[in-house]
Amino acid sequence: MAALTCSASDLQSLLGGAANVTGAAEYICTRFATVSDHFADTAYAVDSTYLLFSAYLVFAMQLGFAMLCAGSVRAKNTMNIMLTNVLDAATGGLFYYLFGFAFAFGSPSNGFIGRQFFGLESFPSPSFDYGYFLYQWAFAIAAAGITSGSIAERTQFASYLIYSSFLTGFVYPIVSHWFWSADGWASAGRADGNLLFGSGVIDFAGSGVVHMVGGIAGLWGALIEGPRMGRFDHEGKSMPLRGHSGTLVVLGTFLLWFGWYGFNPGSFLNILRVYGDAGSYYGQWSAIGRTAVTTTLAGSSAALTTLFGKRMLAGHWNVTDVCNGLLGGFAAITSGCSVVDPWAAIVCGFVAAWVLIGCNKLAEKFHYDDPLEAAQLHGGCGAWGIIFTALFAKETYVNEIYSGRPGRPYGLFMGGGGRLLSAHIVQILVITGWVSVTMGTLFWILHKFKLLRISADEEMAGMDLTSHGGLAYAYYDEHDDAMQEKSFMMTRVDPQAV
Amino acid sequence: MAALTCSASDLQSLLGGAANVTGAAEYICTRFATVSDHFADTAYAVDSTYLLFSAYLVFAMQLGFAMLCAGSVRAKNTMNIMLTNVLDAATGGLFYYLFGFAFAFGSPSNGFIGRQFFGLESFPSPSFDYGYFLYQWAFAIAAAGITSGSIAERTQFASYLIYSSFLTGFVYPIVSHWFWSADGWASAGRADGNLLFGSGVIDFAGSGVVHMVGGIAGLWGALIEGPRMGRFDHEGKSMPLRGHSGTLVVLGTFLLWFGWYGFNPGSFLNILRVYGDAGSYYGQWSAIGRTAVTTTLAGSSAALTTLFGKRMLAGHWNVTDVCNGLLGGFAAITSGCSVVDPWAAIVCGFVAAWVLIGCNKLAEKFHYDDPLEAAQLHGGCGAWGIIFTALFAKETYVNEIYSGRPGRPYGLFMGGGGRLLSAHIVQILVITGWVSVTMGTLFWILHKFKLLRISADEEMAGMDLTSHGGLAYAYYDEHDDAMQEKSFMMTRVDPQAV
Amino acid sequence: MAALTCSASDLQSLLGGAANVTGAAEYICTRFATVSDHFADTAYAVDSTYLLFSAYLVFAMQLGFAMLCAGSVRAKNTMNIMLTNVLDAATGGLFYYLFGFAFAFGSPSNGFIGRQFFGLESFPSPSFDYGYFLYQWAFAIAAAGITSGSIAERTQFASYLIYSSFLTGFVYPIVSHWFWSADGWASAGRADGNLLFGSGVIDFAGSGVVHMVGGIAGLWGALIEGPRMGRFDHEGKSMPLRGHSGTLVVLGTFLLWFGWYGFNPGSFLNILRVYGDAGSYYGQWSAIGRTAVTTTLAGSSAALTTLFGKRMLAGHWNVTDVCNGLLGGFAAITSGCSVVDPWAAIVCGFVAAWVLIGCNKLAEKFHYDDPLEAAQLHGGCGAWGIIFTALFAKETYVNEIYSGRPGRPYGLFMGGGGRLLSAHIVQILVITGWVSVTMGTLFWILHKFKLLRISADEEMAGMDLTSHGGLAYAYYDEHDDAMQEKSFMMTRVDPQAV
Repeated sequence: MAALTCSASDLQSLLGGAANVTGAAEYICTRFATVSDHFADTAYAVDSTYLLFSAYLVFAMQLGFAMLCAGSVRAKNTMNIMLTNVLDAATGGLFYYLFGFAFAFGSPSNGFIGRQFFGLESFPSPSFDYGYFLYQWAFAIAAAGITSGSIAERTQFASYLIYSSFLTGFVYPIVSHWFWSADGWASAGRADGNLLFGSGVIDFAGSGVVHMVGGIAGLWGALIEGPRMGRFDHEGKSMPLRGHSGTLVVLGTFLLWFGWYGFNPGSFLNILRVYGDAGSYYGQWSAIGRTAVTTTLAGSSAALTTLFGKRMLAGHWNVTDVCNGLLGGFAAITSGCSVVDPWAAIVCGFVAAWVLIGCNKLAEKFHYDDPLEAAQLHGGCGAWGIIFTALFAKETYVNEIYSGRPGRPYGLFMGGGGRLLSAHIVQILVITGWVSVTMGTLFWILHKFKLLRISADEEMAGMDLTSHGGLAYAYYDEHDDAMQEKSFMMTRVDPQAV
Repeated sequence: MAALTCSASDLQSLLGGAANVTGAAEYICTRFATVSDHFADTAYAVDSTYLLFSAYLVFAMQLGFAMLCAGSVRAKNTMNIMLTNVLDAATGGLFYYLFGFAFAFGSPSNGFIGRQFFGLESFPSPSFDYGYFLYQWAFAIAAAGITSGSIAERTQFASYLIYSSFLTGFVYPIVSHWFWSADGWASAGRADGNLLFGSGVIDFAGSGVVHMVGGIAGLWGALIEGPRMGRFDHEGKSMPLRGHSGTLVVLGTFLLWFGWYGFNPGSFLNILRVYGDAGSYYGQWSAIGRTAVTTTLAGSSAALTTLFGKRMLAGHWNVTDVCNGLLGGFAAITSGCSVVDPWAAIVCGFVAAWVLIGCNKLAEKFHYDDPLEAAQLHGGCGAWGIIFTALFAKETYVNEIYSGRPGRPYGLFMGGGGRLLSAHIVQILVITGWVSVTMGTLFWILHKFKLLRISADEEMAGMDLTSHGGLAYAYYDEHDDAMQEKSFMMTRVDPQAV
Repeated sequence: MAALTCSASDLQSLLGGAANVTGAAEYICTRFATVSDHFADTAYAVDSTYLLFSAYLVFAMQLGFAMLCAGSVRAKNTMNIMLTNVLDAATGGLFYYLFGFAFAFGSPSNGFIGRQFFGLESFPSPSFDYGYFLYQWAFAIAAAGITSGSIAERTQFASYLIYSSFLTGFVYPIVSHWFWSADGWASAGRADGNLLFGSGVIDFAGSGVVHMVGGIAGLWGALIEGPRMGRFDHEGKSMPLRGHSGTLVVLGTFLLWFGWYGFNPGSFLNILRVYGDAGSYYGQWSAIGRTAVTTTLAGSSAALTTLFGKRMLAGHWNVTDVCNGLLGGFAAITSGCSVVDPWAAIVCGFVAAWVLIGCNKLAEKFHYDDPLEAAQLHGGCGAWGIIFTALFAKETYVNEIYSGRPGRPYGLFMGGGGRLLSAHIVQILVITGWVSVTMGTLFWILHKFKLLRISADEEMAGMDLTSHGGLAYAYYDEHDDAMQEKSFMMTRVDPQAV
């Protein structure tokens, strides 16, 4: 930064004897202007640091998804599902650069779809910097990851390439435009102040924009494809097809938890912002910390509720269920994380756990097969989260975060009336409708052209063998037959050698 | 932030012709006051960014623990141990929110236990913000993770729920109150300046507060339960029960290393603090970097010492041992990481490796079975770390970090006298006593009520089958018998297809 | 920070009645000086936060390498390769502290090798703080990790200890001195302005300094050792020896991707730097975001190119190949990430994918066996990246980042002439020569003394059994024969219990 020099002797001659008051005033004010510039630079650096590292955390969720998905499918389809996770990030990178970001945040727009910034044209600008693009890209690829879980183990790879591109490049960006862009018709921060129900939708980090979109897309895919072979027996009885690695499920869940600290608190986008007077201990940094706490508590409460709930229902303490419950709590709190108190987050997680259990019961009843419970978890708990926000959003927090328009509607149970709830019900309906029309139609067309589902033989053999060049695991040496027996005995190590 | 505007024409009229010197002075000083406020806001944002991302790293250690523990137990108990790791975080979240934080940092207190801030009441305040709570929560759950390693593979799940809640919610918070709260009777930063031995305890990031607490709790649990079946044969000969995955052990160790950069350097809590004059290149940011370096070097030196030490003793190069040695070095440097020079950290790690080797020899001799070597590693190396700090703490660093009270005692070997050492010996004794009385008693009661250890049949079958709904791994397709043979041959891929 | 107080009454008496203009001017200027100091402190804190967390991310790459390597070798050599990854970090820690950093950044130097700062002497200074050491250490250990991949599954452990120390402690530090130190003979930021071809080498984050060094060292090691047994059959036909876990390969790849955000954007070292006027939205924070974007796009484009390229060539969609292609894209963009536009990064990745495919074809033709494709990936794509930078570097970016010397040469295709290209060709030749002479000779000597390669028996049995105390995996209970059958049936869980 340019040095902030002040020469006392120069200033003295301006103030002194034959005083040049014009010069003195300019001398002093120029220095204050420099100070002001330095603060602006500092804020850019601090906020960019905050946003970039948050983006890296959100990216780490893609790794979490990959591991969670891998562990939740059978060993014979591991390479397939992991490839979709890697490609979500890579395809997403190109498509979101070429047009996804433009659709989502192009401005000015008609409120439905953006049309600026294709290929990052006009970047950076005072409104948009590269870090913001990176952060939004990391969000975009998450939605596709959710969907691939629902239709795992039975979807043609070509089909995946098509729906995934369509979802990341078109369906999702448009939804994010509606709710998150300054031009979006339902955005709570709409620039022209013409808010839906005088409120707009407070979907802070995307229970609807990300989780419901991914979940409902998955729902249609899995419904149209039908359940995996063997998932329900001839009498329609549910036969669980267990994933091949609980360790990968826990690894993925913890990584998602870790990354969620970028997803929720990171959605503030900057940290150096005061809410009231400058120089107070309370500002956006504090709201960000509170958001990390509400996120933690919602997940914790959902995990414990699931633990005891499933113990009562199924008779054992199941870590996979606890992991899913935890993630359901996160998906639910994602909408309201910034505008509710910690105690409310505990309520949010408690209900989310039962929503997930209920959705799973329903799924079983209707012979709906979703290897990751993705539609139930992201769709069901995501929808609950949207309602929850409309019930528990706190007046102070809403006005601090969505500032510039005093007296906003807030949570119904907090005395804020029903306008926020109305807006949120509209959000649920509109997302459900839009994703059903676009993705549902696409899956149906793929199905009609016999591009969607793999053949029964392929499903028996597993996709890794038939499409991806071989299985994920090889615990013995394939070229040395003499080694085979040894490999089955691999732990029989001579004790004295240990 | 509010704009920092200075109007030269306004100032000119104040300074000029009919000078209004009162107005001019106020005009100028008001602007400096605004500048001062902006600096305060900036510091909050910078320090919060630093603390929050450090908290996320510490949280990542929970994932590290989960993977390390999973890899170190036999496959049949993998789901059990991972469930305890997930629940440590979740239960810890609720309990630390409800009362743990209040016990630990409630102020003013009687020096023994805090009684304010239950359920984050009065948050945020100038003293405590949400980020601080999150950081301390991530610490609290680490202690419980250590203990679950010691008693792995043989403890009833109900028993785990009880001791884990008691440890995270009561035993650990009280110890952290003594040494880390501004009211703690042994705190080096005690607000009233009435320091133990005129020094107080310098347990910077918790070799004692976290590692010894977890390790000694585990020691009592494992002692009262006795060794796993088959761990010592009929003649008392040690029969290693190898963990089921070296890969998970290495994964967990690296994740713990990664997270330790949040644990040790993060314990500064803020980064924007000058030590001497403002505008110098040397400040807390530099001490934080040094702390990251001492942490790295202590672990490195312990790892290499273990590599060659075990090579001499056991005849092979063992990565599991190296990982444990590394972690022992980290557990040891955790106490003094901020107040010693890098060369001293190398000494710390070197000795820690031998302490661990020695503790393991003792454990074998006394037929003490600890699947993770947790009591030896966290208890033994943690205790060494406390002594090490009292020997090698450097005068300058101690006075910079624990400022406001010049002329503090420092390391005995650095010429600082024996008062710090006295305080540290008291710390070891008091932690040992407190944890033994509380956790030892609890484990004994659980044992008497036959709630502690699982049955021999369960131990043979493994807890995953008996209590947790099934095994962690399923490498072949359970519903398709024709696939079984194939799964054993899973790598026999047609070469031309590769 | 010291409070920035301004007393209006004090200032009023200085300006008023019996005006003391000297005092008034000093009063005002002293406050501006304090403001300036506070900005300096703030910048240190912000930049240190940025650098330290970037260093932690780069460290996470070591975990990524460990998992990638583990998954890419056969199960019987897993412990061996992971031990080398742990030791790279630990040995690197000690050696880089003792002398590596001194060789690399000691200043003033003769341009070839540094000779100051052994054991971090004179740390911290206005030029070098501990965080910088930590960041450079994390880079140094990456190079050794690359090499260990090339010679995996057949190298004596003693040999590893020797070459790894030599590489991390001597060969790599010297190369980094040449290109990155302010005294380096080929550095683009050379302090005396005497630049190679009037340009110096722009190897921003080390396609050459890190990746080519590691890759060429690996090339010589693997060439001198020869291929693994069974890798080519009697007629010389290639027989792939598949790694044992695709899951670990994907895990490692994602972790490397995650860490690369520390590697490339982190190489700016600080974030609070303006490029033009203060107070603008455009500064180093923006260039850092752009670098994260170019990195992402290069990897994405390489991954997709590999996906479709390999589909055409091999007939299936292979996730392992996609992962390698992705990493090749990263290795290539590492050199020019900060000085090219996003669209150019897509070109970079596209070509990198074909370079890797080509190098792998060549390797197969010449019966070169590299279990991780490390020489092809890091050496081949790294070299392409160096050329790419010389073709596509943009004038504005080059002058912003390598400032203080206007009118620098830039990319040939961007109209910047051939001087940058000349310098970059020199870089490729010099790195190839230096690493060949040093590491090639070392590997040859080890080979001559029969220290390099393990025996055929050891290779058949696997190094984990012969040298490292046992295999990595134990999926059944070794002490309980009755359990063996059960363990093979491990998934046969009673459905009603699930």
